[in-house]
Amino acid sequence: MYVIGERINGMFKNVRAAIEEGNKGVIQAVARAQIEAGATALDVNVGPAKVDVLTAMHWLVDTISEVTDVPLSIDNPKYDVQRQIVPRLGSRAIINSCKADPDALDKYMALAAENDAGLVALTIDKQGVPSDVEKRVELGALIGAKAMESGLAMDKLFIDPIILPVNVAPQQPQNVLETLQQLKMLSDPPPHLNLGLSNLSQNCANRQLINRTYLVMAIVAGLDAAIMDPLDKDLMDAMITAELLLEKVIYCDSFLDAYRMANRAAAVA
Amino acid sequence: MYVIGERINGMFKNVRAAIEEGNKGVIQAVARAQIEAGATALDVNVGPAKVDVLTAMHWLVDTISEVTDVPLSIDNPKYDVQRQIVPRLGSRAIINSCKADPDALDKYMALAAENDAGLVALTIDKQGVPSDVEKRVELGALIGAKAMESGLAMDKLFIDPIILPVNVAPQQPQNVLETLQQLKMLSDPPPHLNLGLSNLSQNCANRQLINRTYLVMAIVAGLDAAIMDPLDKDLMDAMITAELLLEKVIYCDSFLDAYRMANRAAAVA
Repeated sequence: MYVIGERINGMFKNVRAAIEEGNKGVIQAVARAQIEAGATALDVNVGPAKVDVLTAMHWLVDTISEVTDVPLSIDNPKYDVQRQIVPRLGSRAIINSCKADPDALDKYMALAAENDAGLVALTIDKQGVPSDVEKRVELGALIGAKAMESGLAMDKLFIDPIILPVNVAPQQPQNVLETLQQLKMLSDPPPHLNLGLSNLSQNCANRQLINRTYLVMAIVAGLDAAIMDPLDKDLMDAMITAELLLEKVIYCDSFLDAYRMANRAAAVA
Repeated sequence: MYVIGERINGMFKNVRAAIEEGNKGVIQAVARAQIEAGATALDVNVGPAKVDVLTAMHWLVDTISEVTDVPLSIDNPKYDVQRQIVPRLGSRAIINSCKADPDALDKYMALAAENDAGLVALTIDKQGVPSDVEKRVELGALIGAKAMESGLAMDKLFIDPIILPVNVAPQQPQNVLETLQQLKMLSDPPPHLNLGLSNLSQNCANRQLINRTYLVMAIVAGLDAAIMDPLDKDLMDAMITAELLLEKVIYCDSFLDAYRMANRAAAVA
């Protein structure tokens, strides 16, 4: 699994304060902790911090890059922010995100392809998030076709069918599972299939239980990437165990520790 | 989910001692606890207890029936034991189990159909447990065809594709998932699809984590019944949450408690 750690986000109080005060230590500690816990890449989101977004994003990238060179997911809806930050990181950048609008896809994919960067493309158009499987798959196919046109490699593309909170959209978890199953067959090799997992349980009780149960379900359906919380140990344990049961990890009594050790070694290498 | 509680089994020390000593209280407490925790039915297995199996099975059925009238899964490989016990229970009996051998199927299905009992039929033949998906599906199809011939209703049939321990048969968890997906389409309505879940983690570390992760994966693939431990709260929570995420349960903040309350009400009714 391609785990994009979600914790460097101004939505979290300590991160917001660190961004506003320019406190490198907090950001670097959160970066290190996520990588230790098994993150493959780190999401970087200024969130509601009261700062100039572009300046803050430059500072965050500098600060994080002092302690790690894992890929960074630049989480900001403005093209102008992406255009300034992505060329600095090149193949270490993941643009997060763009919608499935033909013009936007052309622009973002060109930026990604020029810089050998990754791109998270959402199955959302001007009508919003589709409520049915068919429209999600149609938008996924559009994204895939645009990637081929623009020369963006499938292993750089993360199609995200968008999971909505289960308490307000109870049928969507199933629809997203079916969408994943269909998008997995879009091309060979397929693109990464990604979700912003925590959105599923917004304002729900038992958030961690809901998140980890759905992560396992989505992995069966074809999910191979997620923006998620690697510091949630039960979530990571469930993910590693799902990979074991799909034979992506070999069983030994210490398979949980072995996965984490291998991951840390890869992140440091 | 049709949860067949696995705890009344002579393999467990307290149950074995209770069977050997004729201690009703222990058996009845284990029966009640499993129903409280969400079991739909109870498996009954004399196991290695040093007693006459048929006498012990009669006693267990009497003892359990004093406190509940949920269905009982008579877990014994001998046809002669089934032939003595099943008519006593009628539609409350589940014969557990028979192999996918044509002669055995004819005999066991006739017994089940005559008594309106359930039947767990395993996708195992004289060659043993198939290592591939195709043979498991072929045996599942044979079982389904025999059920139609014998007049056994699909909601009385539990096809079990047999899960083997992941530490010795690492590819089998995936094969069983694929088998479930295919058997789900065997008929409309489909038969129940069942697993003896705990077998997956025999002699493994992190047994409960492995069991609950796979249960969620198998539910996505079509599993709707399992012989499992309802006293494992995390396992039940994962199962209930998977049902929520497939919209078989409606979200409320207390969805875990609500499921258990509804289940207890049904078991008592």
